[in-house]
Amino acid sequence: MMTRPLTVAAAQLGPSSPSKAQAVERMVALMEEAGERGVEFLSFPELSLTPYFATKVHESWDEFFEETLPSPVTLPLFQAARRTRIHFVLPYAERENGGYYNSAASIAPDGTLLGKYRKTHIPGWVEPRWEGLNILEKRYFSGGNLGFPVAALPKVQMGTLICYDRRFSEGYRALALGGAELICVPYNTPSFGQPRETGQETSEVLLRAAAIENQLFIIAVGKAGVEDGAEYIGGSEIISPTGKVLAKAQTEGDELVTATIDLAEITALKNKWDLLADRRPEIYHQLIQ
Amino acid sequence: MMTRPLTVAAAQLGPSSPSKAQAVERMVALMEEAGERGVEFLSFPELSLTPYFATKVHESWDEFFEETLPSPVTLPLFQAARRTRIHFVLPYAERENGGYYNSAASIAPDGTLLGKYRKTHIPGWVEPRWEGLNILEKRYFSGGNLGFPVAALPKVQMGTLICYDRRFSEGYRALALGGAELICVPYNTPSFGQPRETGQETSEVLLRAAAIENQLFIIAVGKAGVEDGAEYIGGSEIISPTGKVLAKAQTEGDELVTATIDLAEITALKNKWDLLADRRPEIYHQLIQ
Repeated sequence: MMTRPLTVAAAQLGPSSPSKAQAVERMVALMEEAGERGVEFLSFPELSLTPYFATKVHESWDEFFEETLPSPVTLPLFQAARRTRIHFVLPYAERENGGYYNSAASIAPDGTLLGKYRKTHIPGWVEPRWEGLNILEKRYFSGGNLGFPVAALPKVQMGTLICYDRRFSEGYRALALGGAELICVPYNTPSFGQPRETGQETSEVLLRAAAIENQLFIIAVGKAGVEDGAEYIGGSEIISPTGKVLAKAQTEGDELVTATIDLAEITALKNKWDLLADRRPEIYHQLIQ
Repeated sequence: MMTRPLTVAAAQLGPSSPSKAQAVERMVALMEEAGERGVEFLSFPELSLTPYFATKVHESWDEFFEETLPSPVTLPLFQAARRTRIHFVLPYAERENGGYYNSAASIAPDGTLLGKYRKTHIPGWVEPRWEGLNILEKRYFSGGNLGFPVAALPKVQMGTLICYDRRFSEGYRALALGGAELICVPYNTPSFGQPRETGQETSEVLLRAAAIENQLFIIAVGKAGVEDGAEYIGGSEIISPTGKVLAKAQTEGDELVTATIDLAEITALKNKWDLLADRRPEIYHQLIQ
């Protein structure tokens, strides 16, 4: 049987840097390391250029958002991709025509934008509910309006879901129906006072189930460490279509988690047992009501 | 905060008995034990009255099916429910008006039928694919045509998914949208030559993810042990809305797995974070195409 190897990486990031330029510098360092390790495809975490600013009320927030890609501050990432020949997913805060989105762009080594996704499920509230850490994404972001696009990369069909999206099976399913073989799940997940392993466990169960159910690979990539007084769960990992964790972050900081996956495993699985073929969409009408 | 305790059981069964009457005798023994242990609600495994006959070709198969409930052979179950005051889920092969279904009935202690579910997703093939164990449910069963009904029991809103259904997130979701607080998942899952723990692990990941995503309890109840040369995974378990395994079978035979769950936990979770409220059904149209 022909193999379809692809070396992929989850480029976990520790707490944010004081400036976007400094964040980009760390991201470029991870891309350089990835290039040395033969990585062909890489994803950064949710809102990779900034702190997870949605935890509190800000006087102004335009500074967190990009209007164009590459922007002057993100240009070094595009240059690094060209040097290392890596396809990469860049999650960022996007402002377009007065709309504010929690987005992720899929970018080819030559800088071509191959796909863009806007986070569908927006967690939390508009106003703070309590002292300390809040989740105020509804204050800063509109719900995504691009559906669940699948990007055709030269070696793989891939889609993206962002953080809270991973709690909604509908997104994975739409991507699988669209032909995705690989889903990137960038996230910024605070541990909310629990041990970070507890948050990792919940995230992992959801991701493994989605991989099994949809017979595809998942790259989950998070923020780790303590940022602005809140701990993030980290635990970035790469998961196989049978739900096996192939590689997982060992640190609470910047870390490249890599694996060489074989996309032919999906074909072999489906030849044996094609789960999507046994769906009954004619009786799923409740799901869209 | 008011509690809503409910003592529930997964009544795991070992390999089938030579006759339905003998199977019923074992099931009645489990109901009697359940009554002594204060159980109020109980589920048996998939096709609880018979072997898992869909693993091969049979000359005739009407003998495996019931046309009415209670049938003479199942009457002792109804009598035991009345004695023990237990609500129970009885999975069985159902024949009705020439239709053949893999079904489960929800029955009140007084014998009232409170709900009936017919397995939606039918695994396998019509003709054998290889020597030995095959999955030929498509030979024997039509796909369920009753949707995903939620039964209103006095103490809980409950639904059922059967075996292969647990690999399709759509079913859990439809039940959650219908108000289910508890889902029973009866199954007959062969280990297919792998260690039974491997099959249990896959099943458990899917069930835990579904419980977390839909914020409800799950009772998973399987066949265990070796039947007709094939090992079944067993591992019956009760899972909380945060994905915690509250109780799990310890044996490969008939075994009552019980837990007292608090349905108010669901309300507390949803007051803190209501996942269903953040769905975006207006962009899920791919799921029904």
